[in-house]
Amino acid sequence: MQEIISYLEENKNRFLLELKEFLAIPSVSTKPENKPEMQRCAEWIARHLTALQMQNTQIYETAGHPVVYSEWLGDHAKPTVLLYGHYDVQPAEPLELWTSPAFEATIRDGNLFGRGATDDKGQVFIHFKTLEAHLKTSKNLPINLKLIIEGEEEIGSPHLLPFIEKNKELLKADLAVISDTPFFAKEIPSITYGLRGIAYMQLEVVGPNRDLHSGSYGGAVHNPIQALAEIIAQLHDKNGRIAIPGFYDEVRRLTRKEREAYRKLPWSDAKYAKDLGLKQLHGENGYTTLERLWARPTLDCHGIWGGYITEGTKTVIPSLAAAKISMRLVPDQQPDKIAQRFEKFVKKIAPKTVQARVQCLNLVEPAMTPIDSPGVKAALAALEKGFGKKPLYQREGGSIPVVTHFKKILGLDTVLLGFGLPDENAHAPDEFISLDNFFGGIKAISYFYEELGK
Amino acid sequence: MQEIISYLEENKNRFLLELKEFLAIPSVSTKPENKPEMQRCAEWIARHLTALQMQNTQIYETAGHPVVYSEWLGDHAKPTVLLYGHYDVQPAEPLELWTSPAFEATIRDGNLFGRGATDDKGQVFIHFKTLEAHLKTSKNLPINLKLIIEGEEEIGSPHLLPFIEKNKELLKADLAVISDTPFFAKEIPSITYGLRGIAYMQLEVVGPNRDLHSGSYGGAVHNPIQALAEIIAQLHDKNGRIAIPGFYDEVRRLTRKEREAYRKLPWSDAKYAKDLGLKQLHGENGYTTLERLWARPTLDCHGIWGGYITEGTKTVIPSLAAAKISMRLVPDQQPDKIAQRFEKFVKKIAPKTVQARVQCLNLVEPAMTPIDSPGVKAALAALEKGFGKKPLYQREGGSIPVVTHFKKILGLDTVLLGFGLPDENAHAPDEFISLDNFFGGIKAISYFYEELGK
Repeated sequence: MQEIISYLEENKNRFLLELKEFLAIPSVSTKPENKPEMQRCAEWIARHLTALQMQNTQIYETAGHPVVYSEWLGDHAKPTVLLYGHYDVQPAEPLELWTSPAFEATIRDGNLFGRGATDDKGQVFIHFKTLEAHLKTSKNLPINLKLIIEGEEEIGSPHLLPFIEKNKELLKADLAVISDTPFFAKEIPSITYGLRGIAYMQLEVVGPNRDLHSGSYGGAVHNPIQALAEIIAQLHDKNGRIAIPGFYDEVRRLTRKEREAYRKLPWSDAKYAKDLGLKQLHGENGYTTLERLWARPTLDCHGIWGGYITEGTKTVIPSLAAAKISMRLVPDQQPDKIAQRFEKFVKKIAPKTVQARVQCLNLVEPAMTPIDSPGVKAALAALEKGFGKKPLYQREGGSIPVVTHFKKILGLDTVLLGFGLPDENAHAPDEFISLDNFFGGIKAISYFYEELGK
Repeated sequence: MQEIISYLEENKNRFLLELKEFLAIPSVSTKPENKPEMQRCAEWIARHLTALQMQNTQIYETAGHPVVYSEWLGDHAKPTVLLYGHYDVQPAEPLELWTSPAFEATIRDGNLFGRGATDDKGQVFIHFKTLEAHLKTSKNLPINLKLIIEGEEEIGSPHLLPFIEKNKELLKADLAVISDTPFFAKEIPSITYGLRGIAYMQLEVVGPNRDLHSGSYGGAVHNPIQALAEIIAQLHDKNGRIAIPGFYDEVRRLTRKEREAYRKLPWSDAKYAKDLGLKQLHGENGYTTLERLWARPTLDCHGIWGGYITEGTKTVIPSLAAAKISMRLVPDQQPDKIAQRFEKFVKKIAPKTVQARVQCLNLVEPAMTPIDSPGVKAALAALEKGFGKKPLYQREGGSIPVVTHFKKILGLDTVLLGFGLPDENAHAPDEFISLDNFFGGIKAISYFYEELGK
C-alpha cells in the first residue's frame, strides 16, 4: 500500500486537472438538447478507462443515454465487486447563483466547485484514480471489478433496469459498491445503510378555458393558482404529517436501537438551521430532525408555476397552474401504491370549480442494506484507515434506485461508500466536493479493495 | 349627420387597414425592452391626428412612456370634452395560444383579432375616426375636444397623475369621456357607472438560503412553495370571503335598487360557466355573480413561481417561491389601507419557518359616476341612436385609475362610453373587437358629440 499512497501523492495535481475536464462536459440528462453531451461524456469515460488498462471497456447504447461498462478480472479466486456510478448531473439552473460557472470547475478554500463535483462525477472519479494507482503500481487489482457508469440517474434511471435484466451474466458479482452518499459531517466518515425511495408527481389545475382579465372575471371564477394552493396546503395536516389517507400504512417503524443510535450522533438543530439561514426547522411532529430525514417519508414541492411570472404587473386569471411534487418513501412503502393514493386524494380534495390532472413522472423504491455483511465490514475498516477515524452508521434521505435493482435482479447487497458532505449543494448552485474527501476517498477505496481481497 | 354616416360607410375598409397598422406596434408598456415601440406608437398617433387636421398635437415626455395630446377648440360657447384613452397593451404571452399572431391583426367571423384590438387601441381608434368624419365633412366638431392618449394604463398609469397635475390648465374641460369598457353583452349597449379599484402586491416567501436536494433535506425544512401555498390558501375563508381583518370595513353596500336592477338583467350563470369551460362558478357566498363582479371586492393570484418549472424532474427544495396577487376594490375602500392590511395579515400568518416579503406594485382607487349628469344622458341618447337599442346601466369589475384623477384634480365626471364585449379576451390570447361594435361605436360617438353640442 505504501507504493500506492506515494503514487497518489505524486499525481494529485494531474488528478484534479483530469477531473476538471470530466466536469466540464454538461451531461444534464433531463434536457433533450444535451443529448450529444451525454454521448460525449460516455466516450470520455470509456477513453479514460481504456487508457488505465481496464479491460473490455464498452459503451452500451440504451433507449436513453448510454451506459459505460468496463472490467478487471484478474483472479477468479478473488471476490468480484460491481461498481456503479452515474455521469449525468442535475440542471445547473439558476445559473446566475453560481459563484463560478457551473461547468468550469474552480478550486476555492480547499473545495472544487462545479456541477457534478460531488453528485456523482467526482465520486466516480475517486474510483477511477484508485484503479489507476493499483494498475500503475502493481499492474493488478486486489479484487475483480466490474463497473457500470450510467447517464440517467438524475431522471430516475428509466433504462438501467432493462440493461441490468439483459446483462445478468455480464454483471454477476459478489457485492455492489456505490459512492454517491455523503459523510454524516466533515471529518466524520460514515457508512449509509438505508435510502429513501420516491414517487414524483406532476399536478395540473385547469380552470377557465382561457386566460381571463381579473377585472372582468374576478369574483366569478375559481382562480387556478388559488385552487392549486388550496390543494397543496391540504397535503399536510397541522402536525406536519402527510394527509393522504393510507400514506403511512406500510412505513417500517424506527427501532428503539436506531432511535437511540441517532440520538447519540453529534447533531444540533440550531446549528443546522443557522447554516441554512432559517429561524426554525420544520417537519412531522414527534420525530427528531435526523429521524425525519432518514427514516420518515416526506412530501415536497419542487416547482410551481402559473400566470404572469416576469417583471411588472399583469391582471390575469390564468387558465392553468401546476406543480411538481414528490414524496420521499421509506421501507416498506411501495412507490406505485403511494402514487395511486396521491392521485386519489388530490382528485378528491380538488374543488369542483376546477379540473385536477395528475401525472406520475418517476417511482423509486426505498432500500436498506444489512450492516453486518463482509462488504460493509471491509468498508468500515477502509474508511477508518483512509480517514483515521471510526466511521458512523447512518441512513440517507435521498434515493438510489439501482440499489433495489441490484438486490432484486442480481441478488447483490450494496455497500454505500460515499465521500460527499451534507452541505455540498448537490442539486443546487455552487455544488462542490471537499478535496480532503476526494483524496481521502481515493485512499479509502484503495484500502477497501485490499480488505476485500484478503 | 347623414353626410357623416355616408362618409363612414364609404371609408370602412381604409379604417380597418389603418387600425391594423396601429395594432401592429407592440406597445407592451410593462416590458422595458419595448420602450422604443412605445415611442414609435406615440409618434404614430401624433402623425395620425395631425393628418386629421387636429390642432396643437404634441407628444409629452414623462418619466415613463409619453402621453399624446391634441385638441380642437372651435367655439368657446360649446362644451369641452376631455377624451382619455391608452395606446399601451398587455403582454401577448403565452404567444403559442394565439390563433393568429398577436401583432398581426386578422379578421375572422366579423371580429378583428390582435393585442389591443379592444383594450384600448381599437376603442381609441373609434374616436379618431369620428373626429375624421366630422372634420372631413364639415371642417368642424360640434364640441370642443381635448384628448390625451397615454402609454402606461396597463401598468397602473404611474406618470399620468403628475402629468395631469402639471397641465391642469391645458386639460380644463366640462366632462371627461373614456371608451375602455364593454357592453353588458353583444347587442346590449351599456353605460358603465362604477369601476373597481385595485391593490396589486407581490409576495415572496424565502426559506433556506440556497436551493436544497429534497432527498438530503426533505423533512427538515419548510418548503417555501408549500409555505406560500399555505399562505395563499388562508387569504380566503370557506365562504369565499377574503380573510384579511378589516378588509370589508369600508365597502359601500349594494342598495336595494341596485340589487333589483342587476337581477333584471339578462344573465345565466350556467351559460356563463359553460362559455368558460367550467362546471361551476366560484366566489363570495351570499351574492349573485354580477354583484360579485361589479360591487364586491375580490382577491386573485395573477402569477406564481418557484423551483424547477421546465420539463423533466428535479428534486429541489427551492430557496424562494413567489406570487403576484391583487385585490379588486369597490367604493369606499382605500387601496393604500388595503395594501397595508394585506401586508400585516400575510406577515402574521406566515410561518416562522420562512420569511415573507411583501411589496406593493400598484394602487388604484375605485370610482362611481353620477348617472343623471348631462354627459351620461347624452351618451344614453347616442348609444340608442348608434345601436338602435335602449342601453343598460351597469358597473364594471375592472379599474380605470384616471377616472379618480379626473375627479380629484380636474373636478370632472367621466362618462364611460365603451364598445367592448365581455368575452373579447382582453389581457388573454386571441383578444378581439367586434366589427359591428367598432363601426357602431364610430356612429354612436358621432351622435354623442352632436348631442353634447346641442
